Amino acid sequence: MTDLVESSQPTAWPRSDTRFILVNVSHPANVGATARAMRVMGFSDLVVVAPRMPNVLKNPQAIAMSSGATGVLRDARVVDTLTEALEGVTFACATAMTPRDFGPPTQAPRACFEALAASDHRLGLVFGCERFGLSNEDVYRCHATLSIPTDPTYGSLNLAQAVQVLAYEWRQACGGFQVEARTPPPRWADAPAIAGLLAHWEEALTHIDYLQPQAPGKLMPRLNQCANRMTLTQEEVHILRGVARAVLKACPPVTGPQTQETALPSEGLGAPE
Amino acid sequence: MTDLVESSQPTAWPRSDTRFILVNVSHPANVGATARAMRVMGFSDLVVVAPRMPNVLKNPQAIAMSSGATGVLRDARVVDTLTEALEGVTFACATAMTPRDFGPPTQAPRACFEALAASDHRLGLVFGCERFGLSNEDVYRCHATLSIPTDPTYGSLNLAQAVQVLAYEWRQACGGFQVEARTPPPRWADAPAIAGLLAHWEEALTHIDYLQPQAPGKLMPRLNQCANRMTLTQEEVHILRGVARAVLKACPPVTGPQTQETALPSEGLGAPE
Repeated sequence: MTDLVESSQPTAWPRSDTRFILVNVSHPANVGATARAMRVMGFSDLVVVAPRMPNVLKNPQAIAMSSGATGVLRDARVVDTLTEALEGVTFACATAMTPRDFGPPTQAPRACFEALAASDHRLGLVFGCERFGLSNEDVYRCHATLSIPTDPTYGSLNLAQAVQVLAYEWRQACGGFQVEARTPPPRWADAPAIAGLLAHWEEALTHIDYLQPQAPGKLMPRLNQCANRMTLTQEEVHILRGVARAVLKACPPVTGPQTQETALPSEGLGAPE
Repeated sequence: MTDLVESSQPTAWPRSDTRFILVNVSHPANVGATARAMRVMGFSDLVVVAPRMPNVLKNPQAIAMSSGATGVLRDARVVDTLTEALEGVTFACATAMTPRDFGPPTQAPRACFEALAASDHRLGLVFGCERFGLSNEDVYRCHATLSIPTDPTYGSLNLAQAVQVLAYEWRQACGGFQVEARTPPPRWADAPAIAGLLAHWEEALTHIDYLQPQAPGKLMPRLNQCANRMTLTQEEVHILRGVARAVLKACPPVTGPQTQETALPSEGLGAPE
C-alpha cells in the first residue's frame, strides 16, 4: 500500500462522501483501527470530535493500527462539537443507546441503510466514546439510531468493530465491491464424461471383485450421485479415470469368488438390495 | 456481564454450534477480540490451531481484549492441526486468498451464508494468521473460500474485524437478533390533529403579520408538507400548539401593514406566488 494510492483523487465509488465521526474517543488505537476499517470499505472522511487525548491523529498507536490507511488519518479533522462535525451531512445516524425518554427511531443497520442508499442524503455515522457512548444531547441531533443486532445477553461491540460492521453494511447497501476468484473458471465435465468415468470405475471395481456383476446392488447409482454432487471438472474426471486405470493395471484379475468381510463396507453397498 | 451468564447452558439460538477456528494466530489480543466478536453474535465454539505463543487462552492481553467474553476463552481448545479442529464440522469456509492453481470456489459471505443457512451443515469458519493467512494445504481442506468484498485498492481487514464481519453476517443469515427501541412506541398524530395545529399556527402567524390573509401564498401548504414529513406525535403537536399559543399571548396584535425586510425570508414563503 503506497501513499500514492492513499493520496490520490477522491474515489469515484458511490457514497464515498460518507462521514465517520468519533465523539470523545479515548483510545488512539481505536482511531487508527477506525481509519483502517473505513479504508477497506472505500471511505475516507473521518472527523474526530473533542478527543480525550491531544494530537490523536498523529499518535503512534493510531498510526500503527491504521496499518497503511494513513491517508485517512492525515486528511482527518479534529473539531470541538458534533454540530461542526456534521457540516454538510444531511442525515446523521447515531450508534448508541437511544435515550429512554424519546429520540430518533431505532433501526437495524441493514434496514436503515437500504432506505438511505435509495435516497440522496449525505450520510454521517456518529460513534460515541468507548465507555459511555453518546450523550443524549448528541443523539437528539441525529435522524436515526442504529443498533447492531447482537446477542441480548452480551451486546458490547468494540468501537472499531462497530465501525467495521457499519462500514461493511453501508458499502454493501451501496452496491458493494466485487469479489473475484484468482483461479480460472472451472471447466465442468458434462454428463457423458461422468458416464465414461463411471464405466471405467465399474470395470476396475469388477476387476478387484468389489462389484459383482451378478449382484451389483446400487453401487454404481450411488457413485453416480457422489459424482453429481461433486460437479467434477474435466481435469478431475481425468484424475479419477487414472485411478481406475492404475487399479486395472496393478491388480491381478480375480479368478474366483472372494470372501468379502474386508472388501465390503457394512452397509453392503455392493450387495443386492 | 457476569460469568454466570457466560457459563450457562448451550444457547438455543440456531447455529450456535458454528465453530470459529484461528490457525497459527500470532497476537493474543486478536484471540481475545475474536472471542468478543463471536460472543456478541451468540457464538461460543472457538478452536485455536497451533498458535504462535504458549498459553494463548490465558494470556492477559487475550483476556483483556475479550472484554467479558471470558467464557468463550475458557471453553476454547488448542489443537495441533486444522483436521483436528474440524472434527464435527461438515462445511468449512476458508477466509483467505484462494491458491492460484485451484481451490474451493470464492464467494462473498452474504451469498454463501444464505445458501448455508438453508442447509443443515455444521459450519466452520477458518481464519489464517495475521501476516500470511492460510496455507494452501489448509485452504484445500475447505469447502468454500469467503472473500469479504473490500476496496480493491486496499483490501486488508484486521483479523478480529474479519471475524466480526463474518460473525455478524452469518448471524444475520440465520435470522439475526432483534433490535429493540428503549422508547415507548410513538403515538402518532392523525390528520385532524395536524390540521388543528396548522390552524393554530395560521392564527399566530397572521397575528404577527408573517402571514397576510390577503396574500397567503403557499405558506400554509408548505408548513403542512413539513408537518407531514415530520410525522408528528401527539405530544409534539401539543408542543407546537403551545408555541402558537405563546406567540398569540406575548405579541400585541399588529394594527397595520408592517415592513417585512426582517420578517420574511428571502424566498418569500409568505409572498404571493
